[in-house]
Amino acid sequence: MIERLCIIGVGLIGGSLARALRDAGSCRHVVGASRNLDNLRLAVELGVIDSYETDLARAVAGADMVLVAVPLGAMEPVFSAIRGSLAEGSVVTDAGSAKVSVIEAAHRAFGRVPEFFVPGHPIAGTERSGVAASLPDLYRNRRVILTPLPETALEATRKVRAMWEAAGARVAEMEPVHHDEVLAATSHLPHVLAFTLVESLARLHDKAEIFEYAAGGFRDFTRIASSDPVMWRDICLANGNAIQQMIERFITDLQVLDQAVEARDGERLLQIFGDAKAARDRFVH
Amino acid sequence: MIERLCIIGVGLIGGSLARALRDAGSCRHVVGASRNLDNLRLAVELGVIDSYETDLARAVAGADMVLVAVPLGAMEPVFSAIRGSLAEGSVVTDAGSAKVSVIEAAHRAFGRVPEFFVPGHPIAGTERSGVAASLPDLYRNRRVILTPLPETALEATRKVRAMWEAAGARVAEMEPVHHDEVLAATSHLPHVLAFTLVESLARLHDKAEIFEYAAGGFRDFTRIASSDPVMWRDICLANGNAIQQMIERFITDLQVLDQAVEARDGERLLQIFGDAKAARDRFVH
Repeated sequence: MIERLCIIGVGLIGGSLARALRDAGSCRHVVGASRNLDNLRLAVELGVIDSYETDLARAVAGADMVLVAVPLGAMEPVFSAIRGSLAEGSVVTDAGSAKVSVIEAAHRAFGRVPEFFVPGHPIAGTERSGVAASLPDLYRNRRVILTPLPETALEATRKVRAMWEAAGARVAEMEPVHHDEVLAATSHLPHVLAFTLVESLARLHDKAEIFEYAAGGFRDFTRIASSDPVMWRDICLANGNAIQQMIERFITDLQVLDQAVEARDGERLLQIFGDAKAARDRFVH
Repeated sequence: MIERLCIIGVGLIGGSLARALRDAGSCRHVVGASRNLDNLRLAVELGVIDSYETDLARAVAGADMVLVAVPLGAMEPVFSAIRGSLAEGSVVTDAGSAKVSVIEAAHRAFGRVPEFFVPGHPIAGTERSGVAASLPDLYRNRRVILTPLPETALEATRKVRAMWEAAGARVAEMEPVHHDEVLAATSHLPHVLAFTLVESLARLHDKAEIFEYAAGGFRDFTRIASSDPVMWRDICLANGNAIQQMIERFITDLQVLDQAVEARDGERLLQIFGDAKAARDRFVH
């Protein structure tokens, strides 16, 4: 049981965790913190949090669990703001989509990576954002990756794992660098491709017509291009090396395909498309 | 009213049109034709067609409307097979995803582009294929593009338009070359990207893990990579020039983004992602 959960950044990710833990009866009091007072009032109205603070130092005082669910670029200032005010025995975790950069931010803010800090990443979300989009079952059967370091207290990792499991998630542990590579492949690259495709098509001179004749596949394919641009800018800045590697690998593979199209090499095209379909069908089933 | 509709290629596209026209009472008899006897028997069982023929010449005899819904690579042999057997006054249309190549195939098979042939393309489909996946409302409020030529009989175009409208579709007309450019952008490029991404990730050495940590966005983004590889090989062969242009334009845009990531240029990234989100949100609403 968490006595007092402090959620810094009450949006889709933080709000959904609060809803899930309240539904599960795993948390006595949720205090929300953010710079946006209207958002905090809305979160109270929606029953997502019990109370709020706009001052981060006051928000974490007395909390036994703190979740930092802010864009990656805001992690370090948040860590610095709460540094002197955490309660004895308090555990801090985060929900950032890249882990090495968050660990570095914690190192800079705290002067070391504190033993009470458990880097984490729930693999869930929608293209929508904000507390109004939060859902109590967002994490049900979804993966959460924790990337504890050798200096992380086992008890802190245990508590964070229990929290996510109470929200319905399946928790795994991974090296931070490996996490960032896996996510660059499965999440960051697809988002970059979807953003680039839509932006590229929007610059065609007959763009109104282009989108008019787009079908359902296009809608699905580009759904993730409706995601929050600030969050994705931060992810590209934070996990730039791994993302660049994936982009450049993808460009090479796309050039191979382009050459097969140019050569009208039906056999090669069928092989690529067939391998993709087989992998996609295995992934779904 | 269509007295006798002949559907050559009783799959998702042809089967869905038959279902829609039967539901609308716009068609008295549907004869299905394909090389696959099991598929034809299934189509009768499912109530999609009334009868079937495996011989294409016999199938079109007496039909006042013929829909050729086969992969692009099979268009020319089908046209050649039906050439001598079409009834007087019969109208022929097709459902190919590229139009210039189908017109060229018709020209080769018939010795000219016949006045009774109306090139067409329903912008609808799912990643599934086969008659079992066919749906009576697949075309409801979806676009169908017809690309009649100067030599096409107005009456033939009128009949094909009426047929698709009876199935619930909104019909537009377009120049064949322009159709192929628009579709290369909105459909062919996204499919190529999805196939390439999934095939690329499947070649990573830790691919099992890669797919294990993929989230909902990845599932949507790659849904179209489950599409029929033969159909997409044929599309890439048939509309190769327009597709190559779009691939190469996309690679250039992706290189720009890659450079922004390398330079950690947050402003540029925010601009690209913001423009994409705005265009995507406009397209959906």
